[in-house]
Order: sequence, then C-alpha cells, then structure tokens
Amino acid sequence: MEKTMDKIIAVAKARGFVYQGSEIYGGLANTWDYGNLGVELKNNVKKAWWKKFIQESPYNVGVDCAILMNPQTWVASGHLGGFSDPLMDCKECKERFRADKIIEDFAQEHDIELESSVDGWSQEKMKAFIDDNNVPCPSCGKHNFTDIRQFNLMFKTFQGVTEDAKNTVYLRPETAQGIFVNFKNVARTSRKKIPFGIGQIGKSFRNEITPGNFTFRTREFEQMELEFFCKPDTDLEWFAYWKDFCVSWLKDLGLKDEELRIRDHDKEELSFYSKATSDIEFLFPFGWGELWGIADRTDYDLTCHQEVSKVDLTYFDDEEKKKYIPYVIEPSLGADRVTLAFLCAAYDEEEIKDGDVRNVMHFHPAIAPVKVGILPLSKKLNEGAEKIYHELSKLYNCEFDDRGNIGKRYRRQDEIGTPYCITYDFDSVEDGAVTVRDRDTMEQERIKIEDLKDYFAEKFNY
Amino acid sequence: MEKTMDKIIAVAKARGFVYQGSEIYGGLANTWDYGNLGVELKNNVKKAWWKKFIQESPYNVGVDCAILMNPQTWVASGHLGGFSDPLMDCKECKERFRADKIIEDFAQEHDIELESSVDGWSQEKMKAFIDDNNVPCPSCGKHNFTDIRQFNLMFKTFQGVTEDAKNTVYLRPETAQGIFVNFKNVARTSRKKIPFGIGQIGKSFRNEITPGNFTFRTREFEQMELEFFCKPDTDLEWFAYWKDFCVSWLKDLGLKDEELRIRDHDKEELSFYSKATSDIEFLFPFGWGELWGIADRTDYDLTCHQEVSKVDLTYFDDEEKKKYIPYVIEPSLGADRVTLAFLCAAYDEEEIKDGDVRNVMHFHPAIAPVKVGILPLSKKLNEGAEKIYHELSKLYNCEFDDRGNIGKRYRRQDEIGTPYCITYDFDSVEDGAVTVRDRDTMEQERIKIEDLKDYFAEKFNY
Repeated sequence: MEKTMDKIIAVAKARGFVYQGSEIYGGLANTWDYGNLGVELKNNVKKAWWKKFIQESPYNVGVDCAILMNPQTWVASGHLGGFSDPLMDCKECKERFRADKIIEDFAQEHDIELESSVDGWSQEKMKAFIDDNNVPCPSCGKHNFTDIRQFNLMFKTFQGVTEDAKNTVYLRPETAQGIFVNFKNVARTSRKKIPFGIGQIGKSFRNEITPGNFTFRTREFEQMELEFFCKPDTDLEWFAYWKDFCVSWLKDLGLKDEELRIRDHDKEELSFYSKATSDIEFLFPFGWGELWGIADRTDYDLTCHQEVSKVDLTYFDDEEKKKYIPYVIEPSLGADRVTLAFLCAAYDEEEIKDGDVRNVMHFHPAIAPVKVGILPLSKKLNEGAEKIYHELSKLYNCEFDDRGNIGKRYRRQDEIGTPYCITYDFDSVEDGAVTVRDRDTMEQERIKIEDLKDYFAEKFNY
Repeated sequence: MEKTMDKIIAVAKARGFVYQGSEIYGGLANTWDYGNLGVELKNNVKKAWWKKFIQESPYNVGVDCAILMNPQTWVASGHLGGFSDPLMDCKECKERFRADKIIEDFAQEHDIELESSVDGWSQEKMKAFIDDNNVPCPSCGKHNFTDIRQFNLMFKTFQGVTEDAKNTVYLRPETAQGIFVNFKNVARTSRKKIPFGIGQIGKSFRNEITPGNFTFRTREFEQMELEFFCKPDTDLEWFAYWKDFCVSWLKDLGLKDEELRIRDHDKEELSFYSKATSDIEFLFPFGWGELWGIADRTDYDLTCHQEVSKVDLTYFDDEEKKKYIPYVIEPSLGADRVTLAFLCAAYDEEEIKDGDVRNVMHFHPAIAPVKVGILPLSKKLNEGAEKIYHELSKLYNCEFDDRGNIGKRYRRQDEIGTPYCITYDFDSVEDGAVTVRDRDTMEQERIKIEDLKDYFAEKFNY
C-alpha cells in the first residue's frame, strides 16, 4: 500500500476529519477546518496530552492565557526584534521567496553539501552563497534578486478605534510567553515548589511565507507547551527526563519506532541561549517532519522578562535558602501536526482474504473519534439498540447506525477507526447479550448488555 | 454576605482562577489569563457543554473551524457591512464614546423612559435625542460632539507579506459562520438527516469600545455555539426545545432559579430575519447580564451564503421528497461569561458556629477544578496517601497537600471549591480505610480505600 498525502487529504475530507477552510468561497490559503470526526480526534489528542502532562503529573499545572498580550512581551521575548524570515524578490518576475529555502533547494538539487543548517546563517552569508553559486530564480530562472530583508512573522492587528502604532498588538506566535509572564502568579497560587511545570494548550499564529503540507505547517495552529522550571544545575537531567516522557507519550498512543526519530541539534544550530535541543520527528508521507521540540532554554526567558518588566522574577528556594532564576525545559508540541501524524499512522488499506481490501484507521482507542458503533441488525430492533446507545453515550462518543447491511456498516466504522461495534440482534431480546466486534482483529464475542460498561472501561483505560 | 465584583476579582486572583493578562507589563486593556484553577474550571465548563450538547445528543455533532476565514464570509454574514458601533468624539476633551451608551446612561440618570432599546435606533434618531436633550459629554460636560459614525468591530490583520487590502483578513467575530460555510460538508460526512445540529467551541474577537466587568465582556472571548438545522415549519418548536434545554443545563450545574431570568426580545428589538430571540440572563454582582442568546434565525444565514458563494446550500429532504434551505435555531453561549457566572454563584462566606466564617466555593462537582484533595494527617503517612493520589489522578484532577494542620488544609480546599477531601491517618495503615469529608456538609465518613473509585464514580456522575 502506498500512503501519499493526496490519499490522506482525500480521506480526511471524505470521512469528515478535515475540510478546506472557507471552502465554499474557494478557501483561504492554507486554512483548514476540523470536521465532525476531526474535532473529536483532535480533542482526544489534546485530552491525552493534558491527562499525562497535567492531570496525572505530580509536578505540573495548567493555564490558559490570552492570545493578545502586551507588546512589551514580544520585546522581551525577542519576537519583535528577531522573529523573522529572510525574504527576497525576483526583480524580473516579481515573485517573492525565502532566501534560506532557495539555498536549501538549490543545494539539494545540485548535491552541494552545506556545512550547517541554513537556519543559522546570517543574511550576508546567504547573499554570498546565492551570488557565488549564481542561484537562479526558481520561478523565471533569471538572476536579478533584490537584497534580502527580514520580514516579521507576527500577525499584527489594532485594538481600539485607531489604526496606529499606539494601538498595535500582535497575535501570539507561541503560547510559551503567556506562561513566562505568569510564572510568579502560578507559583504563588498553585503553591508548587521547584521543580514544577506549567502547561498550556492554545492557538498561535505565524505569518509563514510558505505554509504547506496540509495541516503540518499552517499560519494558524494550536500548540501544547510545557515550561518546566528547575534548579540551575539540574536542567540537563530534566531535559533527558522530558525527552523520554514525550517519546513514551507518542509510543503509548500507537506511533511505531520506525516512524519516529530524535534529532539532536548540533552546536551551530542551537539558539545562543540553549544548552540542548532535540526534535522528535515523525515520518510523514512527505518525509520526516518535526512534531516536538524539546529545549533546555536555561534562564534566558525569565531573565529577559525580568529585565524588560523590571519585576523580580527570581524564585526563593527554601531548601537551599537562596534566590535564583529557574532554568527551563520546554517540550513544545504542535497539536495539529501530531493529530496529522496519528491520522497518517492510522491509515491502512488492508488486504483481507481473496484479495478483498478494507480501508481501516487503526487509531489507538484513546484517540479514536468514535469509540463504539451501535448497530441494530434490523430496524425492528432499534429500541433495544437505542437504549444501549443512550447509556454508552454518557461515557463515550458513540454512533448509532441502522442504515444498510451489517457488513457495510462494519466497513464504515472501520473507515473512521471505531475500535468496537456492537450488534444488537434478534437473540439480544432473549439472552440480554450483544455481539462486540473488534476493529483490528475483526473477531466477535458475545457480551451481556449489563457487562458492557465494565468491558469497555477496561478497553478504553488510558 | 455582600458579593461584589471587587471581591470576586480579588479572590479569582488570589486563588489562581483568573489573573490580569500580561500583568508584569501593567496588563493589556481588559485581557485576562486563566490560572491553574481557572483553566480547570473553564475546561470543565466546556466539557460539560460538549457532553450534553454533542456527545450525548442523538442530534448533534461538532466541528472546529479556523479563526481566519475567507473575507467573503463576512460579506455574506453582514459583518463587513453592518457589524459596528456608533461612535462619537467630544471635540473639546477629545474623548471617544459610544452614542448608544451615552443615551442609555443619560436616560437612566434623568429617569427618562425610552420607548425602545437604543440598540435598534438609527444613527439619526440617536443624534436627534442627544441634540433634543442637550446631552453633555460624560467626561468634560461640554456640548460639542462630532457626528456619529460607524466603527466596525472586527479585528483586522494581514496575511502574507504586504499590508494591503488584498491581504486583509479578519479575526472571526463569532464561531457560527464556520458552521454555516461547512453545513454541506458536515451533512455529507456525518450522514445526519434533518433535524440535526453542529456545535463548536472556540475563540472569537470583537474590538469592543467599552469592554468591562472583569471577564464578562472582553475583546477576545470564547464561544460555545450550536446551529441547529430543522424543517422550515418546525422552527418555533425547536426554538422552545433548545431554550428549555439550555436552562436545564445551567440549573443542572447548580445555578438557581432566582439567579436566572429569560428575556424574550420584543418585535422592535428582533433582528429583521429573526422570528424569535430570547436571552438567558444571570444576576451578576453588577446586575443582570446575558449568558445565552437563543435565536430563531430562519433560513437567513444559509440563504446569504448561497447568494454570495453561488454554492447550492439547499438540503434534499428524502422523506418529504423536496429541497429547501433549512431553518436554524442558534443557542450561543459565552464560555468566559458562564464560567464567571459559576464563579460568582459558587462564592460564599459561610458563618459556621461561634461566628467563625469559612470561605467556600460551592461548585457543582462536575465543574470543580480540583475534585479530590488528598491529605496525609502526618508527613510520615505520605507514602500511603501518595498511592491514593496516584490512583485517583488517573480519573480526576486531584491535589496532594501535606502542609499545615488538617483544619487549615480543609479550609484551603473549601476556598478553591474541592468537593471532597480524603484524610489518610494513622488508622488507615491498619484498617485500609480513609476519612472522606464533604465540602458542603462538612460531614465525614469512613470509606475503604478499595471502594474509593466506586464511591467517587457515583459522586462525580454527570
């Protein structure tokens, strides 16, 4: 079976996972809407993150901060000064490009090995490479570029009546800064002592020049970030701890070893304040793509906010009897990306006997959008089946389906990844039992209706 | 006990429900961040909505659409043309005001009974009222206003590299339109037949001139909206159905009759396309405020989108064998507002014996941020208590607290509204049982540790 992005996108649309945004208006570049199944899938992914990183963690608590923040935040974080892409126009055909992307593509095409990731290059170095290698415009092939200039990636808007500098605010480019500015508040109200973490799930916005690959890189996206505050000498230990924790979380939800790799950043690629950074990457149909960035950010963020805000952000450690600015480990995960990874990983065209192929989504039960499909064998049996639907719906997102023959209904539930189907048949009225079918093994077993809740409680234990 | 907004705001900050947004930078007008308890409270409110309106409903499914939409959406919805406030400047002191607000305040102050809500007045009518009554500037008292002009409430931003009209996009002012533009997609992928509904929870943005009352009216806010599609002649029945459903939802979560009222819009107040609209209001410390707007929007929205998009948005009813544009009932709830209502309703200073007062939050168990507090009577008992914490944390958001005397720890859990506290004492090691204390009755009962899960499953059944 060949798994391509075209297939995934078609299936996502056909089955109700992801539609093109504003589709009836021809879309809006690279926006996507989660459909009736997609919203359940993504919500389950967010719940699974919150459960393991916040609810069950003795260390961490959550917050939910505003998307609009005081612009001084972005002065301190460096986003106003430095969060930009190097852009260039072709003076001939008027197309606009990211200089780093042009260089990467050119190098790949011509088998030129770059000494380091172009990400870390200065503007001058990029310009020099383009001149030295006589890199042409990817669009018209000419050699007449403008100078490279920096384009800030933050979305700008105006709060209040007038559109002037005084009223300019930005859509946050990351959720992390809402956590940093609230470090003292949360430490006070949660009464947590170091080491402890603060997590947040929420939308962020980056005005990317080249978004793409379906929901992998979008201008509007959702993040699940943890900022873990620890004692200065313990950061590398905690860095290793959270890296393992993140990998386990992905594997527990069904991603396989061969679909995952960890890429440790080398010295040149590291941000100047970071002691260590690793990316957890997933093998998408379009190649390896970053899901999770885990970074040892040292005391950089809190120090910057302390300097700009003039508010004391030190922590008094009452075991050590001293004040310090905590070090921070940041595991930052893209909710849309990891949802896409689960969608890609789950997709299967499975050959069953006699060359017959079934389409099935092998979602982990914890993230499957529909947990149980309830299928009366005949419409005459709807009443009994509806009772079960009504009871189980209090616990799980379920689907009731009484349309078409039972084989087709099983296939439809397979297609959307429902782990279990209940068939209520003519015997059910007599014996008070139903047939439960397993999506993956396709095996069926007879279960008493009164035992269904316990049966599923175990199956959906996560 | 006097319940004031000042008290609620102070308590929200002190206990970790809501902090001022970007506080270390002096805030950003009227933005708020949910703290470690607030995020749990609000998430629980959202979950309770999703559970009753989507998961358990045989009619409804969910979606999660992008905040950034194709601007044609706002042409069709009327937001680009008509979604605006009437503004006026005082030429003397340069302050800016909403004309309708000035009139309302003036009328109230001078006991003038207005024949209808100023909301529905034309610009000319407002201007005439101000002139006729010689209404002064609320700030400087002079009488030198500019003309009234309309100010659009949508936040504007630019997607792409250049800040021009071609790249202008808006932050959605409501989640509803994402549902309307996807009506056909969801009908197709969910295979739902009319009547059915589509619900969504998500952020919206309105550039209000006068936000206020804490989290009641903010420029960035979260909505929980349902668009329920039905046959044209059945709309008033469904309008009544959903109105009752919404009131029940609020009461089931603990709001009292005397804190709620339903305000039916009179003819003049109704939008021209609406057959009926009712607001469910809550008695906040600052007065009655709208939580839920329930509107019979007829076929207005889908008709507008069909006209502007030129995409057929009719529905083929295979029972009636005919095509029509469905009618829509819209119950629209503000997530931040209703969370604030639950916070206000829960707040209590309770006089217990001998004039002693305890601060307690009487949250319904389903929305309480912390479900169970686990308190070892002595630090020597931490191991056994931690085991319980570890087990229950898999099911609920719990708190472990071993600091201070047990009475103080109970009071602290009362303050944050934890419905149950478990005390693990010296007998627990022997008899395998713990004391469970009820927040509201303060009664205690002895429960076997092995029975705790069943005990709480019943208590937290929602």
